[in-house]
Amino acid sequence: MFTREDIEVAELVTGHSLSIPVFRYRGSAAGPKVHIQAGVHGAELQGNAVIFALMQLLENTTIRGEIVLVPHANPLGENYKFGDYTYGRFDPVTGDNWNRAYWQSSCASKNERKEASQLDISDFAQRHQELDDNELGATFKRALADAIQAKRKAMQEKGGTYANNLCLQLQALAVDADIVLDLHTAANGTRYLYVPAYATASALHLDMPHHLIIPKEFAGAMDEASFCPWWDLQLALAELGRKDWTIPFDAFTVELGSQETIDLTAAKADAAGNFRYLCHKGVLAGDPDPARHSTIFRCHLSEYLTVFAPCGGLIDFQSQPGRHLRKGDTIGTILRFHGLKTGMNPKEALVTVSAPRDGIPLLQFDSSAITRGTQLMQMMTNVQEVAAPR
Amino acid sequence: MFTREDIEVAELVTGHSLSIPVFRYRGSAAGPKVHIQAGVHGAELQGNAVIFALMQLLENTTIRGEIVLVPHANPLGENYKFGDYTYGRFDPVTGDNWNRAYWQSSCASKNERKEASQLDISDFAQRHQELDDNELGATFKRALADAIQAKRKAMQEKGGTYANNLCLQLQALAVDADIVLDLHTAANGTRYLYVPAYATASALHLDMPHHLIIPKEFAGAMDEASFCPWWDLQLALAELGRKDWTIPFDAFTVELGSQETIDLTAAKADAAGNFRYLCHKGVLAGDPDPARHSTIFRCHLSEYLTVFAPCGGLIDFQSQPGRHLRKGDTIGTILRFHGLKTGMNPKEALVTVSAPRDGIPLLQFDSSAITRGTQLMQMMTNVQEVAAPR
Amino acid sequence: MFTREDIEVAELVTGHSLSIPVFRYRGSAAGPKVHIQAGVHGAELQGNAVIFALMQLLENTTIRGEIVLVPHANPLGENYKFGDYTYGRFDPVTGDNWNRAYWQSSCASKNERKEASQLDISDFAQRHQELDDNELGATFKRALADAIQAKRKAMQEKGGTYANNLCLQLQALAVDADIVLDLHTAANGTRYLYVPAYATASALHLDMPHHLIIPKEFAGAMDEASFCPWWDLQLALAELGRKDWTIPFDAFTVELGSQETIDLTAAKADAAGNFRYLCHKGVLAGDPDPARHSTIFRCHLSEYLTVFAPCGGLIDFQSQPGRHLRKGDTIGTILRFHGLKTGMNPKEALVTVSAPRDGIPLLQFDSSAITRGTQLMQMMTNVQEVAAPR
Amino acid sequence: MFTREDIEVAELVTGHSLSIPVFRYRGSAAGPKVHIQAGVHGAELQGNAVIFALMQLLENTTIRGEIVLVPHANPLGENYKFGDYTYGRFDPVTGDNWNRAYWQSSCASKNERKEASQLDISDFAQRHQELDDNELGATFKRALADAIQAKRKAMQEKGGTYANNLCLQLQALAVDADIVLDLHTAANGTRYLYVPAYATASALHLDMPHHLIIPKEFAGAMDEASFCPWWDLQLALAELGRKDWTIPFDAFTVELGSQETIDLTAAKADAAGNFRYLCHKGVLAGDPDPARHSTIFRCHLSEYLTVFAPCGGLIDFQSQPGRHLRKGDTIGTILRFHGLKTGMNPKEALVTVSAPRDGIPLLQFDSSAITRGTQLMQMMTNVQEVAAPR
Repeated sequence: MFTREDIEVAELVTGHSLSIPVFRYRGSAAGPKVHIQAGVHGAELQGNAVIFALMQLLENTTIRGEIVLVPHANPLGENYKFGDYTYGRFDPVTGDNWNRAYWQSSCASKNERKEASQLDISDFAQRHQELDDNELGATFKRALADAIQAKRKAMQEKGGTYANNLCLQLQALAVDADIVLDLHTAANGTRYLYVPAYATASALHLDMPHHLIIPKEFAGAMDEASFCPWWDLQLALAELGRKDWTIPFDAFTVELGSQETIDLTAAKADAAGNFRYLCHKGVLAGDPDPARHSTIFRCHLSEYLTVFAPCGGLIDFQSQPGRHLRKGDTIGTILRFHGLKTGMNPKEALVTVSAPRDGIPLLQFDSSAITRGTQLMQMMTNVQEVAAPR
Repeated sequence: MFTREDIEVAELVTGHSLSIPVFRYRGSAAGPKVHIQAGVHGAELQGNAVIFALMQLLENTTIRGEIVLVPHANPLGENYKFGDYTYGRFDPVTGDNWNRAYWQSSCASKNERKEASQLDISDFAQRHQELDDNELGATFKRALADAIQAKRKAMQEKGGTYANNLCLQLQALAVDADIVLDLHTAANGTRYLYVPAYATASALHLDMPHHLIIPKEFAGAMDEASFCPWWDLQLALAELGRKDWTIPFDAFTVELGSQETIDLTAAKADAAGNFRYLCHKGVLAGDPDPARHSTIFRCHLSEYLTVFAPCGGLIDFQSQPGRHLRKGDTIGTILRFHGLKTGMNPKEALVTVSAPRDGIPLLQFDSSAITRGTQLMQMMTNVQEVAAPR
Repeated sequence: MFTREDIEVAELVTGHSLSIPVFRYRGSAAGPKVHIQAGVHGAELQGNAVIFALMQLLENTTIRGEIVLVPHANPLGENYKFGDYTYGRFDPVTGDNWNRAYWQSSCASKNERKEASQLDISDFAQRHQELDDNELGATFKRALADAIQAKRKAMQEKGGTYANNLCLQLQALAVDADIVLDLHTAANGTRYLYVPAYATASALHLDMPHHLIIPKEFAGAMDEASFCPWWDLQLALAELGRKDWTIPFDAFTVELGSQETIDLTAAKADAAGNFRYLCHKGVLAGDPDPARHSTIFRCHLSEYLTVFAPCGGLIDFQSQPGRHLRKGDTIGTILRFHGLKTGMNPKEALVTVSAPRDGIPLLQFDSSAITRGTQLMQMMTNVQEVAAPR
Repeated sequence: MFTREDIEVAELVTGHSLSIPVFRYRGSAAGPKVHIQAGVHGAELQGNAVIFALMQLLENTTIRGEIVLVPHANPLGENYKFGDYTYGRFDPVTGDNWNRAYWQSSCASKNERKEASQLDISDFAQRHQELDDNELGATFKRALADAIQAKRKAMQEKGGTYANNLCLQLQALAVDADIVLDLHTAANGTRYLYVPAYATASALHLDMPHHLIIPKEFAGAMDEASFCPWWDLQLALAELGRKDWTIPFDAFTVELGSQETIDLTAAKADAAGNFRYLCHKGVLAGDPDPARHSTIFRCHLSEYLTVFAPCGGLIDFQSQPGRHLRKGDTIGTILRFHGLKTGMNPKEALVTVSAPRDGIPLLQFDSSAITRGTQLMQMMTNVQEVAAPR
């Protein structure tokens, strides 16, 4: 069914190589290309289990197009442990956030142009605006691939960090994809999706209960690196008068619960959501299970609120990711012996943290030991309810 | 009710001091002295909540003797975080395990004698064997206190690491206690107790469901440092013919579930167990809640088994600390993409780990990301059931 | 001479506070305000020694204006050690680079405006373009101070990370300064200066042998946060026709050799350079020692080259920071056993790394254990020589 | 010349294997077996360079017996980096000190017997006391090898940590050796040797300037694990009346300067010392360079003194490893702003640390950032001078 190829991405102090496995399913007919990767943040494990569950579903499914699955996408990050846990977000040597090191393969306009290798979108739009949708998409993919190829060549000559090389290799794998799913988790979180504002309708098919709508901004993440060029192209074409062109490309960051956790049963349900979506997109021919979520909650990133700890201490969280909060509900109680002086009532050691607004927490800090300023929670506010498609 | 004193235990690079809070309750009548500390392993938080819950119970309780409560007993350890988590077992500079750095304040016989400050137990027994039980206990406490005082003086002159100084300060606080409880947690664990073999009867009153019976061995832990001298004294007196002397001293390491977690509700139940025990010991005059556990499961440390990971990968634990296992039951399933070659059935990526014997797991590794040799689980085997006292 | 005030900047898990010391020298006459801070990257220690050496020089010196000295400016960062070393660049919990977390207190134009608290420079320029130089500077400082005050108020209400709060507190301390020096070091480095392109003449008085000329870009560092508003004001005034206004403000990041190192003797020489510069600026009335460096080497940041390791292994560095290299000179030899097969000549385990261009390395990686992609060296190329002022 | 074999020692989370390279030189004639390993503490690099230098010397040298060289002996430890540095002494997950995890393959007497696999030395001595020296040595090696083999079998069945498995594999490689050199370095150190008290004469040939004489104690290190059985055998034979048997076995821990450093030039000199020693032992037929050190300084481990930091702060070390100190000499000056109050003389921020006795520091802490209790220095006292053999 699948072929496996291993791509070398690191050479350690001791000379050992680390590689990433690439599982490739080639469909019997032409169709979209799907790229799904997991584990770029090394502690965020569940995406690997979802890829595994998806592989089991694909065993007996007809595929149109191609599906590329990349678990363990950041072996250096996944292998850095302290105590039981994995220090997986940041390179402990360089400080790089591994999901902020992707390369911006294009620039929206000449003025912004920074790098020789980058594709100039406004220039591309001007030169190719007459192509039909299919031709335009294919030509654009080739142009993006050329940009990434040029950048890789430059990096081979001049060198680059592990993070930069890894990200560029992942981008090269995904550059001709029509769909990119980057599987992550929160620290202690529920399931949610980052959705570029142009793709809110398409996102509904992924059967994820919470959607964060994000704007066209590049901050180095895989989803942004993937969708920004297409989105810029849409704007550039619109400026040239072609206002009806819709972006034939989806990229989502999928948040699958809590870090450090593998749950093979939950992974089956997660994979079923992917399956539904891929059927909807015409990649898979199947009869998907019914969606689990009839209502989807969403808010714009600008309404996504962080609650910081007002003091240091030990918090007993009374809230849970995914459970709706009303303004004033107790998020947690902080035990803070520091202020408890001789003769006081022990209760004076307790500090209550309340929800500043109505909303839905998507993630919480994964330890009760907090300092002042610890990001206790991130919560959606001004939440909108949308009916999920059947 | 209580008085609070802060004891300085560290001076940082920037010159700031760190201290430990000592909450002291002096009873209205004479009675035993109780020393309870929490947080020596910095990620093991729940003991602090139990101390807080106990403080609330003590608000309206008559005390005989004295109770000393020391939460946050290792401020350096508790403040070392990476990502969300606390690297609390080991000093990141010296590698010291903070619960293996206590000082052996006595030696059992002249031959073993290593340090000038140590109390020679066989010599003490010989000189004081004629004292009555009360006098003997009081004299022994004074002798131990003298030894610790001499050691502290030597350390002040010659210096010592943070760990050594901290442990010695905690020992000095506890040296005249009749009861020492050192509150810890496992990584991902249930509730259990380390019980010195001589104190199995006394331990039953603490309302902890699992007991690990430990021999008289000093490996640097607080409980061992506290009870070994008394146990050695018993043996020395027996050798001198006084065979009926029972040890008037209890020291237990109490394991309160999982690290990184504060649960104020569970802490109330935990504190209720302590309360029961202290009533039984005559320290508190109260009417304790009924015990939660009617059956206590115990095994000897030599029957406490570690299950190691047979390979690297991502484990979905199917077992839970505290849930009984039969030999052959699945502990967990390891997802291991490494061996999955082109064309294989995805299921071949799964490796099952089974229980090697009947037993009760007390703790599990707190991450699904494991290497070969990771200590997945520790489980009691050859488990004995004991009825708890009413 | 000086007054000392301690500003609280952190509250730990255990409730302890961490603070930064602020030493303040108030001159006998009016004059510029100087702000010098050290240790924002916690492993970069030498700035603290330079502040100490400067304090000794100030004991017998007449001051015009005010000098504020802030050593140990990041106590959380300075106290995080592993093994012997300090993990001082990044917050181990949030990943924040502590010198990339300053707040952008102004925006250059309305279009860019992102935050309510930010000062709009073009608007300010328009409203105050008629003021004379003194009035304009004073008014601008007040406007910047207002912006920072508003931001602090907002952060007090909504909370913020340790890094954001710390940086904002340091900015608040420095907001009315005329001169800001942020003292850092490299990993293994020589002495050099980051110089905003508008201040190249002024920088020559600091007696630092190497200058990196940087453009007007805000990436979160203290120097950028300090000088960008002034630089933007200059451009805005020029656009309004006032082209002769020179920026009455200096901000430099000063790199003082290698991390983890205190050298009190070298600090005297470093402080002497600061002393010279402050005499030149009219803050100090003294007779400075002659400059140590008659020639200053400089290049633009765009010509500052990183050399990456071509493979993993163990490098013997043959180059040294500050020692000029010719293209092709050996930077180091990598010992790489990995490729050494049965029967080969041991020499085949050696890989030579050569300088890709002529230039001056300013810093090197501070360990011989490297992976492929390790940033072995950063070097100035296209170096320009400038005579230092007498 | 050499053959290379790679022994698998770890499987990572991502499934990748780590291995250690074993370079084997088989002599043209019978002779002793030599085992040299480097890098068990992952930051201690120079031993790898010494092995490389030795390989170059062996290219043109006649060997009697066999030489086994194992660089990069702890790949997991060597690949754990934070910032520039390597956290190489301790397993960051289990806390194991990698040079304290070797297995005690024998016990000196029946009473001590703890493990089924251990060889009982007193029993062995009794059974084999009549053998001649050659036969006795060979029989003893076989018995030790059997014990290790049995232990490995048990560990394969029951599992074990990475550290335990690695150490046992290294012991299995070295169990039939006549000479074991374990190459380490200090943090910031000079060159010195740990010498078991029975081997002081032999040690003189290694051309190392400082010797620490150690007693027969097993604390888990490779040298102890290697020589303790032989030493116990000597004592057991003596007790049986065979008092003239000399131990035909050397094991030394060799300390090669400072961690994180590769110096290929110094490695040649280090290897020349090894070469001299191996010529003296009859393994190599060559004409060694003259020894570099005509005088060797030594003291007993009990006279090896640790100097602790009296306060937290920033130290400027004025002493250097290897440079002799007189009692009262300044070791370093600590800059401690913490006590510097308004109006004080800046000099009051300085704290001097002096040598408590005459002696030779062998190592120093490798950072100027220290807490109270930091181990600033370890120094030989009551130093004895010995003339080196020509």
